[in-house]
Amino acid sequence: WVRSVRSQKEVLFLHINDGSSLESLQVVADPSLEKRDLTFGSAVEVQGKLVKSPHRRQNMELQAEAIHVVGPCDIWSFPLKMKERHPLEYVRQFPHLRCRNNALGALLRIRSEATAGIHSFFQDNGYVHIHTPIITSNDCEGAGELFQIEVSWAKESAEKTHFFNVPAFLTVSGQLHLEVMAGAFTHVFTFGPTFRAENSQSRRHLAEFYMVEAELSFTESLQDIMQVMEDLFKTVTSTVLSKCPRDVELFHKYIAPAQKVMHVTGKNYNPLILFSSSCRISYSEAVEILKQAPQTFTFKPEWGCDLQTEHEKYLVKHCGDVPVFVVNYPYDLKPFYMRDNEDGPQHTVAAVDLLVPGVGELCGGSLREERLPFLESRLQRYGKSTDARRLAWAEEYLDLRKFGSVPHGGFGMGFERYLQCILGVDNIKDVIPFPRFSHSCLL
Amino acid sequence: WVRSVRSQKEVLFLHINDGSSLESLQVVADPSLEKRDLTFGSAVEVQGKLVKSPHRRQNMELQAEAIHVVGPCDIWSFPLKMKERHPLEYVRQFPHLRCRNNALGALLRIRSEATAGIHSFFQDNGYVHIHTPIITSNDCEGAGELFQIEVSWAKESAEKTHFFNVPAFLTVSGQLHLEVMAGAFTHVFTFGPTFRAENSQSRRHLAEFYMVEAELSFTESLQDIMQVMEDLFKTVTSTVLSKCPRDVELFHKYIAPAQKVMHVTGKNYNPLILFSSSCRISYSEAVEILKQAPQTFTFKPEWGCDLQTEHEKYLVKHCGDVPVFVVNYPYDLKPFYMRDNEDGPQHTVAAVDLLVPGVGELCGGSLREERLPFLESRLQRYGKSTDARRLAWAEEYLDLRKFGSVPHGGFGMGFERYLQCILGVDNIKDVIPFPRFSHSCLL
Repeated sequence: WVRSVRSQKEVLFLHINDGSSLESLQVVADPSLEKRDLTFGSAVEVQGKLVKSPHRRQNMELQAEAIHVVGPCDIWSFPLKMKERHPLEYVRQFPHLRCRNNALGALLRIRSEATAGIHSFFQDNGYVHIHTPIITSNDCEGAGELFQIEVSWAKESAEKTHFFNVPAFLTVSGQLHLEVMAGAFTHVFTFGPTFRAENSQSRRHLAEFYMVEAELSFTESLQDIMQVMEDLFKTVTSTVLSKCPRDVELFHKYIAPAQKVMHVTGKNYNPLILFSSSCRISYSEAVEILKQAPQTFTFKPEWGCDLQTEHEKYLVKHCGDVPVFVVNYPYDLKPFYMRDNEDGPQHTVAAVDLLVPGVGELCGGSLREERLPFLESRLQRYGKSTDARRLAWAEEYLDLRKFGSVPHGGFGMGFERYLQCILGVDNIKDVIPFPRFSHSCLL
Repeated sequence: WVRSVRSQKEVLFLHINDGSSLESLQVVADPSLEKRDLTFGSAVEVQGKLVKSPHRRQNMELQAEAIHVVGPCDIWSFPLKMKERHPLEYVRQFPHLRCRNNALGALLRIRSEATAGIHSFFQDNGYVHIHTPIITSNDCEGAGELFQIEVSWAKESAEKTHFFNVPAFLTVSGQLHLEVMAGAFTHVFTFGPTFRAENSQSRRHLAEFYMVEAELSFTESLQDIMQVMEDLFKTVTSTVLSKCPRDVELFHKYIAPAQKVMHVTGKNYNPLILFSSSCRISYSEAVEILKQAPQTFTFKPEWGCDLQTEHEKYLVKHCGDVPVFVVNYPYDLKPFYMRDNEDGPQHTVAAVDLLVPGVGELCGGSLREERLPFLESRLQRYGKSTDARRLAWAEEYLDLRKFGSVPHGGFGMGFERYLQCILGVDNIKDVIPFPRFSHSCLL
């Protein structure tokens, strides 16, 4: 595809690009080869000699002998323009064409390398990959709203039976299904789409997004979970930086807001530096830090209340703009499956959130309650207070604790938030190929 | 986890397994270390010395000094029994425990290696991985029935507006979205869940299954597409065979129906041998072969009609139990996006299906119609005859042919069918961790 055409008296310059990298190949041709439909955006076949380039900006160039326009491009109606740096908001309007924009092209190559890096990381560390189900009868966390699934022909028919006999939803997390697998394999992971029907158009939320989730058996310490989070971040980021350095550079130079990059690591933003130091505090310590903060929060910090985004941002700043692990959250704040720390009077569970500069919460994890009596009493309490469908298979979940139960734990990482973090991209819609959010499902 | 306990006068033998392979580790202990809750299915921590085993059946064994039962297992209510070879139908009843069965454990390790192998194959060949959307406003093929998505809270509220403003469905194919990306990257692929609301409990269909799909730009020949299908099959199968030979062997020895294995490659079933020869025929030739068959079909073979499973099976057998590529299908049978061969009087499109022994259709692909006038007239015809929502974004799809259109094509491979093919598994429900089909959504 032609990225630029520059016609001079003696010579015709083209830059052509096949999507394999940010850099284009320079074509040098006789002006007689120019045609009317040889424009920006057109697809061409060029025959010629690949030679060492006399120019410093590229190694090779193609001396054209023949140029054939395979697919022309009507530049007047084509919304992308030659050599213009279109804002991300602008190209978002053209979901079928925006991948031809430099920034989105770079993003998609990075996303592809990160995806491969995640699979390799877990594979190399002995994890078994599990396709946890997309359609489930279950609502793991009650986190956010659920999408329900109907069969379109059932709606028109008289009988209103469910396709699956039971109400079915799009998954919000693969965790409980990974726990099933963690009863047979020591280490398992999944990497797939998850869904929240949040009525939000924010820069931080999508209705369809990707989660990396891992579950580790024979693990008795949050430290193990935190170590995997950190190793995953470092390994995948190294892969991305070595596989597509120019694509990453594009974001750091032109897209990431300058102040964010400066904040994190000084002049040369290297996302790997993020974990050169990190901070670990308890939830209780976090609340104390917030209470002593010189600033006023919209939500007053109080032991027992959720940490809000404003709180998370303050904590990251307070710790020196490094990743912050917050551990041991209030028992009453967290889902039924988290492991009871049996402490008091401030009763907590073994949960951990990882907060990172610019993004806030990147990962969330916990040890799971593997002790049958604890889980039974918790589920009883839980069952009373909420909709019974939340855990449609409580009996089976309890079974996992009756037959060879082991201490285990795991975590989830939002893949789009990870990309936002390493690239400094402000809006989550710009790090996914086809964003879905309330009022928008383009293509 | 304890797989067997054998208590003798002088010595206690355990076999313990952590899910990393089919083979268990033998533990040799003093009978005094035996306890009441040291049973099949329990989880244990064993301390001792790992030494070279005097037995021929294993390299190493663990001489135990201490055994601690981490999680007991009530063997009376535990549905899996020691040293019993449970039929796949039996373990299917216990979706939360069946991964602890040898066959399902082996299957899940194979599935994990195949997943990694697919990502590596495309990565190594310069493909960009794309997460095509799960939720879409579009019905690519009109193939099978669609699942529609509703927000559960919207149903209770007075206003019946859609969450996305438009009706939204679960994807049946990522192809059209890959075509968008094939306008920026020469080679792209996706590997994710797809959905069909087919009211079927057959051995061949699931409501939620996985598809590998690839799209290649600057491709003018079905031969290129067929070559990628074959290379993908061979490379991934080699990976699986080298990474988990014992797991594959389990299936070929005990699970695959003997006659199927014999059919395909003689005594030693090696799925790699499948492609040592393959056959390529046109749809028209296929119909002629079927017409001359000495057997009677339920559906009479006729030019212009779809090939049924019985026909596909006959063709594979006729060609000598090798993979069969069938090319050039009737124009009126196939979706609007397939490339017109401009032949006649029997008008065809450049489509290809790959049929394999035991499974039938494994892959389907085509060249896509990249010529604007052909596509416009086809869409017009198509739009008249079917529901308009089928291609909710016809304008954008046509745009792809206005701005640098190139000859391109691609294919999809059913991942579960692939696993059935290389392992000889009869029922598709046994090659996916959590099967979803009509009337069933367990866990």
